Amino acid sequence: MTEKVDLIVKSGTVLTFDEEESRFANGAVVIKDGKIVDIGEQLDILQDYEAKDVIDVDGDLIMPGLINGHTHAAMSALRGYSDDLPLDKWLEYIIPAENKIMGKEMVYWGTLVSAAEMIRSGITTVCDSYFFEEDAARAFKKSGMRAICAQGIVDFPTPQWEDPKEKFEVIEQFLESFPKDEDSIVNPALFVHAPYTTSPESYYRARELASKCGIRLFTHLAETENEVVEIKKKYGRTPVRHLEKEGVLSENFTAIHANWVDDEEIEILSNYGSSVVVCPGSGAKLAAGVAPVTSFIKTGIPVGLGTDGPASNNRQDLFYEMDLLAKLQKIISKDPTTLKAKTVLATALFMGAEAIGLEDKIGCLKKGMAADIIVVDLTRPHAAPLFDYMSHLVYSARGFDVKTNIINGRVVYHWGKIYPFDEPGAIAKLFEIGNQLL
Amino acid sequence: MTEKVDLIVKSGTVLTFDEEESRFANGAVVIKDGKIVDIGEQLDILQDYEAKDVIDVDGDLIMPGLINGHTHAAMSALRGYSDDLPLDKWLEYIIPAENKIMGKEMVYWGTLVSAAEMIRSGITTVCDSYFFEEDAARAFKKSGMRAICAQGIVDFPTPQWEDPKEKFEVIEQFLESFPKDEDSIVNPALFVHAPYTTSPESYYRARELASKCGIRLFTHLAETENEVVEIKKKYGRTPVRHLEKEGVLSENFTAIHANWVDDEEIEILSNYGSSVVVCPGSGAKLAAGVAPVTSFIKTGIPVGLGTDGPASNNRQDLFYEMDLLAKLQKIISKDPTTLKAKTVLATALFMGAEAIGLEDKIGCLKKGMAADIIVVDLTRPHAAPLFDYMSHLVYSARGFDVKTNIINGRVVYHWGKIYPFDEPGAIAKLFEIGNQLL
Repeated sequence: MTEKVDLIVKSGTVLTFDEEESRFANGAVVIKDGKIVDIGEQLDILQDYEAKDVIDVDGDLIMPGLINGHTHAAMSALRGYSDDLPLDKWLEYIIPAENKIMGKEMVYWGTLVSAAEMIRSGITTVCDSYFFEEDAARAFKKSGMRAICAQGIVDFPTPQWEDPKEKFEVIEQFLESFPKDEDSIVNPALFVHAPYTTSPESYYRARELASKCGIRLFTHLAETENEVVEIKKKYGRTPVRHLEKEGVLSENFTAIHANWVDDEEIEILSNYGSSVVVCPGSGAKLAAGVAPVTSFIKTGIPVGLGTDGPASNNRQDLFYEMDLLAKLQKIISKDPTTLKAKTVLATALFMGAEAIGLEDKIGCLKKGMAADIIVVDLTRPHAAPLFDYMSHLVYSARGFDVKTNIINGRVVYHWGKIYPFDEPGAIAKLFEIGNQLL
Repeated sequence: MTEKVDLIVKSGTVLTFDEEESRFANGAVVIKDGKIVDIGEQLDILQDYEAKDVIDVDGDLIMPGLINGHTHAAMSALRGYSDDLPLDKWLEYIIPAENKIMGKEMVYWGTLVSAAEMIRSGITTVCDSYFFEEDAARAFKKSGMRAICAQGIVDFPTPQWEDPKEKFEVIEQFLESFPKDEDSIVNPALFVHAPYTTSPESYYRARELASKCGIRLFTHLAETENEVVEIKKKYGRTPVRHLEKEGVLSENFTAIHANWVDDEEIEILSNYGSSVVVCPGSGAKLAAGVAPVTSFIKTGIPVGLGTDGPASNNRQDLFYEMDLLAKLQKIISKDPTTLKAKTVLATALFMGAEAIGLEDKIGCLKKGMAADIIVVDLTRPHAAPLFDYMSHLVYSARGFDVKTNIINGRVVYHWGKIYPFDEPGAIAKLFEIGNQLL
């Protein structure tokens, strides 16, 4: 008797990225109800299944989808609006422009267009941090992406609240808007902007709320050298020590950037079981800094990889970001053997999953895991010859090599077409929103 | 009366990159005998011409093709063969492998596959430096690319000559194999490997030969800190000073890499009218260094941008390289305002042309210049909205956005298809050659 399943992806080299680093030369992945029910050499397993749909990848690469640990997807509306500036000047340009267009419409359409960019380059999961985050969640649901939607918290007036005192009401409403649903692939979290914009009281309250709801707390932390100086001046201690003292750190805490942390701060983060997401592209473009990724990993801190928002990076393509992560670590440490291609891939896959608390669901391909799968084209000139898949994926492959993107068992992208939504329509809407700034 | 022409590219935003930075919102480029005969708003000019072929780009971007100032195209045969190693260790792995497969076949097919990679990502001109360079020239002629083919010179035995004493015979034959043809788009040059592999005598003889033939002399120079130490120990002076003393510098001299040069050496290069080509990707991946690009430009030295060979970078895509150039300059100088997007584009366009002595032919679009033109897709999600073309091209666009590549008036690539040669056939050949290493 054969088992009825939803989808089989077959006839490719399967890189599982599981603990055993299993590979199947002519492999297949069997999918039912959004999960992987079998995986292996197709001659060994396919006789047991009858599938509604079959994708024959004809020798291409089958691997887990990439995980974007940090972005502000809606900021695609501001992409390229101001560049080649330091963080403080950049904020001076961006914040008034942002305040002019930020709202439910901008967040929905900006996020949807970013989802298109991410899906096309093989991202299956995204951690988004912004305001009007219920509209970002609406866009991600529409797009078919797996998403952690972290509602922004800052002690300023924003288009979402005139009076910062009201913000926790807005935030509690946001959290209530997510029905309890274990199968949902779009889930809430909190994002406190940064220690230089948000008080210890707000941080502490966000931490309490996150603990109560069992959700993750993200924050920009130790992004620039200047931030360290400012926070030290204001609170008498460096950013990580400051949040430790204020009782903010926990195992559900993820520090974004973490470019400027000393060895003791790395130990502190590790002791709390906290994690880190680094954004090499935005760190370099703003000359903010390069995070000590090798030290994080040595200390046992899970490190994820983020594109950061498209107004600062300006790409949401983890193939660019993996390459940059490797190259920046090598040039800064003056050691080309640092952070080998395999480790770079881990930050965008299973280690990246751990950094956002989703390691039981995503980041590798094995039975019981979510069916978040991409197919990478191996017929292009830059894949010839192919000595080493790890090197190929980090140093040669491009986001455009992704031919198929499957999220939670659903084919959201195949051979140039995004299925869940009208991509050209979303792009046209975003142009309209951008035009408000001209 | 209308003039008969070969090709019109129309209905797009034309960025000319000429001295006036002219742009045409609904522009056209008129092409005859490989040259641009007219350019402007299409309503103003098209009534004067009748074309054999017309490409309507439907609102996309029309701009000059990109110039790859340095690669070893044939080394695609070794792409990904050894990574995450320092330059000296990397050479230990690469050289025996290279000696095993290097020859006319490897150079021809490796170069042809690299040409496919470059054409697809909008490169129209390449400076190639390798051995068996007549076979590289044969491949570039086949590919339709504009190329400067620099024959390698090194004081070691190579698969091209058993006894290094024979090398100048081989090189003179190479130079004679290029018939005098002003219209040829594939032309010769010389490439001396590096001061740590080649004697002052060979450098001087190469320089004499280059002067006699009116061709350019390229060399790897001051790539690593270690090279500076070694050359100083051996010759009593740093690499640029060493070549100056040996009479090698001239206005036809291009230093590749130039990561480790002091201010006085920059002055020396400038005084001789020499130029520089930097390779940020390979410099970072091998942790070799970051060139002082801003100082070069301030001193008036034309700076070109190179991908370096695919065994060390491993991509030959200048969209990656432009992004990296900007980001590495910013993070190393700790100044995000350094090397703005517009200047980055100059290194891949008109300034890059100057760095290789082709500024009268390529690097911008205007009447009389060669018709080396690319069309960049503006319909993808990462082009929405679009506030600034310079920012878009450096920080958002990807090589794959190139939809059409026209070299010397010939359409070599259009909508996914390379016309001058059998791309899948070349890829299959390169796999066969790579298999010799397994």
